[in-house]
Amino acid sequence: MPANGSKLSDDVIKQRINASEARVFKAIFPSNTNHHNTLFGGDALAWMDETAFIAATRFCRKTLVTVSSDRIDFKKAIPAGHLAELIARVVSVGNTSLKVEVNIYLEDMYTEHREHAIRGVFTLVAIDEHRKPTTVL
Amino acid sequence: MPANGSKLSDDVIKQRINASEARVFKAIFPSNTNHHNTLFGGDALAWMDETAFIAATRFCRKTLVTVSSDRIDFKKAIPAGHLAELIARVVSVGNTSLKVEVNIYLEDMYTEHREHAIRGVFTLVAIDEHRKPTTVL
Amino acid sequence: MPANGSKLSDDVIKQRINASEARVFKAIFPSNTNHHNTLFGGDALAWMDETAFIAATRFCRKTLVTVSSDRIDFKKAIPAGHLAELIARVVSVGNTSLKVEVNIYLEDMYTEHREHAIRGVFTLVAIDEHRKPTTVL
Amino acid sequence: MPANGSKLSDDVIKQRINASEARVFKAIFPSNTNHHNTLFGGDALAWMDETAFIAATRFCRKTLVTVSSDRIDFKKAIPAGHLAELIARVVSVGNTSLKVEVNIYLEDMYTEHREHAIRGVFTLVAIDEHRKPTTVL
Amino acid sequence: MPANGSKLSDDVIKQRINASEARVFKAIFPSNTNHHNTLFGGDALAWMDETAFIAATRFCRKTLVTVSSDRIDFKKAIPAGHLAELIARVVSVGNTSLKVEVNIYLEDMYTEHREHAIRGVFTLVAIDEHRKPTTVL
Amino acid sequence: MPANGSKLSDDVIKQRINASEARVFKAIFPSNTNHHNTLFGGDALAWMDETAFIAATRFCRKTLVTVSSDRIDFKKAIPAGHLAELIARVVSVGNTSLKVEVNIYLEDMYTEHREHAIRGVFTLVAIDEHRKPTTVL
Repeated sequence: MPANGSKLSDDVIKQRINASEARVFKAIFPSNTNHHNTLFGGDALAWMDETAFIAATRFCRKTLVTVSSDRIDFKKAIPAGHLAELIARVVSVGNTSLKVEVNIYLEDMYTEHREHAIRGVFTLVAIDEHRKPTTVL
Repeated sequence: MPANGSKLSDDVIKQRINASEARVFKAIFPSNTNHHNTLFGGDALAWMDETAFIAATRFCRKTLVTVSSDRIDFKKAIPAGHLAELIARVVSVGNTSLKVEVNIYLEDMYTEHREHAIRGVFTLVAIDEHRKPTTVL
Repeated sequence: MPANGSKLSDDVIKQRINASEARVFKAIFPSNTNHHNTLFGGDALAWMDETAFIAATRFCRKTLVTVSSDRIDFKKAIPAGHLAELIARVVSVGNTSLKVEVNIYLEDMYTEHREHAIRGVFTLVAIDEHRKPTTVL
Repeated sequence: MPANGSKLSDDVIKQRINASEARVFKAIFPSNTNHHNTLFGGDALAWMDETAFIAATRFCRKTLVTVSSDRIDFKKAIPAGHLAELIARVVSVGNTSLKVEVNIYLEDMYTEHREHAIRGVFTLVAIDEHRKPTTVL
Repeated sequence: MPANGSKLSDDVIKQRINASEARVFKAIFPSNTNHHNTLFGGDALAWMDETAFIAATRFCRKTLVTVSSDRIDFKKAIPAGHLAELIARVVSVGNTSLKVEVNIYLEDMYTEHREHAIRGVFTLVAIDEHRKPTTVL
Repeated sequence: MPANGSKLSDDVIKQRINASEARVFKAIFPSNTNHHNTLFGGDALAWMDETAFIAATRFCRKTLVTVSSDRIDFKKAIPAGHLAELIARVVSVGNTSLKVEVNIYLEDMYTEHREHAIRGVFTLVAIDEHRKPTTVL
């Protein structure tokens, strides 16, 4: 049995991780900004959670709920009139849970400048019809 | 001068088109659905326009406005509890305008089933600070 | 049988078209604008689709789904702090489908100036309980 | 000087009232409903205020702020899957203020049934650039 | 039987009123403002209705619907970049209905300045499973 | 100088913490829920960030930005048709930063049942007009 605790080989897991990656581009408009004219942190968190959920669902095709987020660092404010790309990717596969890393990159609209802005890791658990944890694989 | 009407070679254009592609994954929740429990068509149109705008901006790094959308076919309804992926890609480069094709794919959450649902083409024009058309390249 | 393919006379159709017209006034506030401070094109499309749906439903009182939008031209940008009126009207009645034209007029708040801004035509199909096309009349 | 307190004749006022009437049709979707599956009362109030503002602005073409709403009766709950039409109309013209009546009609999607659901009256005051009350006419 | 028309003593009622008070703090961001950069009156009304509903539900733990709002005065505009606190409190207990007063206080972000901005009273009725009025206590 | 690193006594700090606590009650309606009919985790995160920001701002009356969230545990899913109360409270005062704990309590609408659902800690930094960290006290 492979080290990842399932009957699947590490190669199959890796391939499935690549295939389940979820990307979401956003244009930052006034409806998402606070009074400093930068992206409201709460919107960033909500987008990260949704993108993590999508990547995790595409990885295991099970019913999933978010059970925790690890420490999230907001390194860079994201001003209105910029683009942001969220990339969510499974980084760890447990018995009944998955960890998904989400990175947000900030991109200028009018130059090629792109930099890392926010990183977070979300833990999701697969549940069965009685809302009890079940295997992710 | 290359056939595409700019000083850039077709290879450079092609490379830039690949690099500017924009992807947006969505989970379809009750807030996006009509009373048939499927994605509200207007939300699909709004998401397509935003994704087209992002791909076009990333292609030319100019100020852009949408001037038209071509015929859009809604082949498949997208039910709540499904995933949808939008992929926007520049398909034609004019002197002051770009055409961007946006496809929406419908994906089951709990199987690998994925199919094409909606296709549209949006035309955007690059404008200068006086809101006059300017070259995209 | 009248030329419109139904048992209803053209006069009855005309009367029903007049009665089913749907009007929607909007004040353009910051939550609907992009970073150029004009109405986000996606919001205009979403509003047009909803208004077309209302006019079509009021015309035939059947379950309807949008199947396509024809070419839509965004002639004029609609700046924040203006009013916009959408007017949707059935323009063609087929066997199982309707075409609805939607026009958006831009109105200054503080003068009588009003002008045509956006026009689109949406096709909707009447469906029965099995989601199969059914007659609109 | 006419009884309405301005230099305009009652006929001109009446004509202006007719021309400034604002209509807004809505389809009630899940995003507007509470857990009883009927239109959230707060959304109805927000829509009434916006429609009153539009009618009042179109009547006098001045900068206006809402200063009060009179008693509002919610006679009928508006269930999801119905249509609602708001009609706002100036009903009284003061020196620096206007009263606008807003009625909401509930309409079945699949029958011709239509009935009165909600009525309210909003008072708006015209303000100058120093936010001081100014004449509406 | 106590004067309030129920079997509960006035002291119990008073205690329950204190325990059911609902408070909601908001930061006013661009998505809630009109083109004067102040809180859109309709958003204030929607927030008041929701907060009144919460206080009333917590008081009687019955199914409630809003049946009317009394006159509401918007004394002060609430500018973007400020805080607002809504406080909802039952003020009158009838046989099948409750009256809830909602006050909105405006607070500067960067000073201790706080003042009263908006006041309204909402009437809610308790309903049974057939949507008929039922006793609140 | 008191242990908290400022010129203020611990008593004054404590008093200010009590006075700056921010409470936000919410009714969970369909627009906030995912396809399991429970509160979307992203909405919970967005609400927590906003409430933390309000408590921190009320504590120090400075310009603040969120720089990180510590581990957040989603102990209980919050179903539609329930109430949720967020309570945010400063728990630690540094030189240029504050830590704010936010707890979400889930409350039945129709019984007195209330339980703890989600807990998180957010770190905010005070910034000056050049966006450089500045003292919070």
